[in-house]
Amino acid sequence: MGAVHSSSLALSTDPRFVPVTSTLPPCVSKVSKSKSNSSLFGRTRREDKILGPPVSIFTSTVAQNSIFSESLPLKCARFEMGTKNDEVAGKPTLGFVEIDQDLVDKMVYDALVWSSLHGLVVGDRNVKISGKVPGVGLVHAPFALLPISFPESHFREACELAPIFNELVDRVSLDGKFLQYSLSRTKKVDAFTSRLLDIHSKMMESNKKYEIRLGLHRSDYMLDEQTKSLLQIELNTISSSFPGLSCLVSELHRSLLNHYGETLGLDPRRIPANAAVSRYAEALAKAWIEFNNPKAAVLVVVQMEERNMYDQHWLCSVLRERHNVRSIRKTLAEIDAEAKLQPDGTLLVGGVPVAVIYFRAGYTPNDYPSESEWRARLLMEESAAIKCPSISYHLAGTKKIQQELAKPNVLERFLDNKEDIAKVRKCFAGLWSLEDPDIIGKAIESPELFVMKPQREGGGNNIYDGNVRETLLRLQREGTEEDAAYILMQRIFPTISPTTLIRDGICYKDHAVSELGVYGAYLRNKENLIVNEQCGYLMRTKTSSSNEGGVAAGFAVLDSLYLT
Amino acid sequence: MGAVHSSSLALSTDPRFVPVTSTLPPCVSKVSKSKSNSSLFGRTRREDKILGPPVSIFTSTVAQNSIFSESLPLKCARFEMGTKNDEVAGKPTLGFVEIDQDLVDKMVYDALVWSSLHGLVVGDRNVKISGKVPGVGLVHAPFALLPISFPESHFREACELAPIFNELVDRVSLDGKFLQYSLSRTKKVDAFTSRLLDIHSKMMESNKKYEIRLGLHRSDYMLDEQTKSLLQIELNTISSSFPGLSCLVSELHRSLLNHYGETLGLDPRRIPANAAVSRYAEALAKAWIEFNNPKAAVLVVVQMEERNMYDQHWLCSVLRERHNVRSIRKTLAEIDAEAKLQPDGTLLVGGVPVAVIYFRAGYTPNDYPSESEWRARLLMEESAAIKCPSISYHLAGTKKIQQELAKPNVLERFLDNKEDIAKVRKCFAGLWSLEDPDIIGKAIESPELFVMKPQREGGGNNIYDGNVRETLLRLQREGTEEDAAYILMQRIFPTISPTTLIRDGICYKDHAVSELGVYGAYLRNKENLIVNEQCGYLMRTKTSSSNEGGVAAGFAVLDSLYLT
Repeated sequence: MGAVHSSSLALSTDPRFVPVTSTLPPCVSKVSKSKSNSSLFGRTRREDKILGPPVSIFTSTVAQNSIFSESLPLKCARFEMGTKNDEVAGKPTLGFVEIDQDLVDKMVYDALVWSSLHGLVVGDRNVKISGKVPGVGLVHAPFALLPISFPESHFREACELAPIFNELVDRVSLDGKFLQYSLSRTKKVDAFTSRLLDIHSKMMESNKKYEIRLGLHRSDYMLDEQTKSLLQIELNTISSSFPGLSCLVSELHRSLLNHYGETLGLDPRRIPANAAVSRYAEALAKAWIEFNNPKAAVLVVVQMEERNMYDQHWLCSVLRERHNVRSIRKTLAEIDAEAKLQPDGTLLVGGVPVAVIYFRAGYTPNDYPSESEWRARLLMEESAAIKCPSISYHLAGTKKIQQELAKPNVLERFLDNKEDIAKVRKCFAGLWSLEDPDIIGKAIESPELFVMKPQREGGGNNIYDGNVRETLLRLQREGTEEDAAYILMQRIFPTISPTTLIRDGICYKDHAVSELGVYGAYLRNKENLIVNEQCGYLMRTKTSSSNEGGVAAGFAVLDSLYLT
Repeated sequence: MGAVHSSSLALSTDPRFVPVTSTLPPCVSKVSKSKSNSSLFGRTRREDKILGPPVSIFTSTVAQNSIFSESLPLKCARFEMGTKNDEVAGKPTLGFVEIDQDLVDKMVYDALVWSSLHGLVVGDRNVKISGKVPGVGLVHAPFALLPISFPESHFREACELAPIFNELVDRVSLDGKFLQYSLSRTKKVDAFTSRLLDIHSKMMESNKKYEIRLGLHRSDYMLDEQTKSLLQIELNTISSSFPGLSCLVSELHRSLLNHYGETLGLDPRRIPANAAVSRYAEALAKAWIEFNNPKAAVLVVVQMEERNMYDQHWLCSVLRERHNVRSIRKTLAEIDAEAKLQPDGTLLVGGVPVAVIYFRAGYTPNDYPSESEWRARLLMEESAAIKCPSISYHLAGTKKIQQELAKPNVLERFLDNKEDIAKVRKCFAGLWSLEDPDIIGKAIESPELFVMKPQREGGGNNIYDGNVRETLLRLQREGTEEDAAYILMQRIFPTISPTTLIRDGICYKDHAVSELGVYGAYLRNKENLIVNEQCGYLMRTKTSSSNEGGVAAGFAVLDSLYLT
């Protein structure tokens, strides 16, 4: 394709790793050196949560930062060293094995152009200023070349769950005592959750009413290969990311299949429509209308540096262009410095009243380096603005609450419809507190079947395999309350598929696992339910590549679905 | 605006130079150091042609590369050191003087976001690979924050000229003898023109028919401040750039005025619609239809490195998405290596027949480093593909021909309609060959009223002021035929306006001059005229900033029009 020449570069004799540098001659010569310690966004974000530590055959030094909310070292998928890759899994048409290299090169080139023209971009982690100043240091967001095949029935299942989870979060949020009680042991050992609970307590004491409630959630799932069941990884009730870029990746894949689908035997219509960004914007706009102040704006709470800013800007752009609602971006520290509460509870930022506070920061302890940020969080919670999320919504999304809800007869306290309860229960993986001696025994015996998850958000701290056993034994020995900082979760073994992934303009062929996120929007006022819907989806695909040194350089990319 | 803090940085006491770094703290501290030797695209391109040498009060070391096709050192505009800037020129609402700095900051931020989301991007000149691999090293295209005010009558005049120039080029192209004769002296002293003429001769000898003729031109103008007349700078018949990005800048400005227009007292509807990219794509598609081979593609001839590739990709994207015509990008060297001519004249590139050859390279000697590139050019010319431009169209756009057409009674040879002739003549600046002793005398006497332009394209060699006198005297002394390498042109004194320009995320306030380009598309087959229209416009604004050292750092940005 034009000035881009082809040249093949053999990096490894390991058949699992097939680097493809043909479209991009000068960029990176070795995967091992290709920023192996960095991730998509180089920060610990909710959406960029941890991979397991280096315990698999793809020994990893990189597991810290990834766009994956969750995953397992690739070992988990029972991918064996000797297995012939191409037979492992996945629809062959979407894999890389049988697609002609020239065709791949053309598609990669077209995809890179498409991304540049259509705003599928992030800040380049190699350009320092790219997380602060828009318009500079741009690079295409990492993406999979083709959508990942996914059973239509499971996709529907996930979509149908969205409004149920929306409702569940709302009901749980109203039961302050349940939240406080469930998190009481966690509070003792986790300072971050403790501070959130303090704010929550204050709100309960002041008897604060949350009459207009807005939730923009994302529930993340993996498909367990063995049981063929859709299992929930986590429910994000704060800062659900990628509503903007996920739509674009679906469009990118549709565009590629429009042009190459016939050759590939793939039908672009099998990529489901993805309206995440417009639905999220619509929900924000409807909340803004409920607030009923034409001069008010949406306050977007952001991190100091945000290389994923264009995802956020897409949402704000739709909000403004389509709904004529303007937004203001501020960090927690800026809000502490600039925001004021009027006697009637109106939050003013730079003199502008705030209708809705939309958090794209504040979910990790890192976002609160000083008391200033906590003051800002409290001030916002005390204000009359609609919080997305409120402190209760935020707490309802914690892992501990996820685990509590999985206990027998707990869902029944919050949901009325038996079918809904059954659907939710079906997607729960095994979830246990460390107060259960039976399960502790099982996990020590077969640690490979469990993941230990710390309550603390923004992670990199999930514990796998031998470390599960070690940690559990240590906690038993020490007998402190540190056990309350963890939950145990059934380990999910997702399908591994051969995938073509593009990052920094470089094309990699590797095996990868995928995680599906389904967006949900919920809005109600005192009298009525206004919005309760599934909004779209996010597919993320994560690879792990070994090199000569045996050190893995795993990274995650944005993807979409091909329904099968 | 969010994490981007404000801080003002005084660089100079020169009142003409008001750097605005408020939205972008860490980037560049001094204009003198901000890549003062580079231009928008860092290459010598037709669209990036030269500014005058450092002879004005804005002494310039940078004049070499700019997106300006033409301009004069800012001195020309009779801007006097002691003049109070704000009174110099321009509609005050579009200047920078009376706009509140907070508002400017917001608009700059919004504009940078808009550019990133909507593909108003170029390759970053600081990232080596950005001219080769799409999707990496992206940065917003440099742009003016607001459209430049422009009299509606003059804009209409320029638009009305487009179809007349289209027709004129076509008529001139048919008169091979006129082209050969007019350029015969130039041929002796300019090797590049000589090679083009050789190809042209071969085509004449072989009696090659060009029955389907496609022209995608851009005629560039400046508004002379003193005479209030629209004067043509040059007519581009090859590689007219920015049809893609110019439309985006118009949209950007419209979007800004939609949001801020009321505050600024500006009406977004006064920015004329700009459909350059869709009209160009439509003309290419119609030519493709004339070629009548459903398997054929459009061959885009590109430079080895092209940081303005997204402008080209926009055109190809519209061509593909809207007209289902695919394009192939190749350098001249690649075409030499890969292209074949079938017995029936069909040009095959990689086995794909070529319907239309669209040149975005080949206009400068730099594009022909070896015989390989000239072989490719000849092969294409000999093929049955529709050339955009053909060798005749290319030659018809040379400066020498422009000057020949300005001679008395020459236009009358090519155009029938007297009104058309009058319109064209009206926009001609004074143009003379160096064979005229009267004009030589005048230019030696008052060199500040003339520009000496070398025939050689892709420039940086225009001669101004004292150098005009020196060069003319030298040529007289030497008595060689070197004078045939130049034409003399009346110097145009455009309006200088206070302008806010953004490059690399940094906002500059400076005085600037603007140049209007009007796109034209022309297509005919043996029997019929199929397309002859004005397609849209390009506004470019060029600034020059002095710093403490007295060295100017001028650069050009994309702009649009505000009709007054």
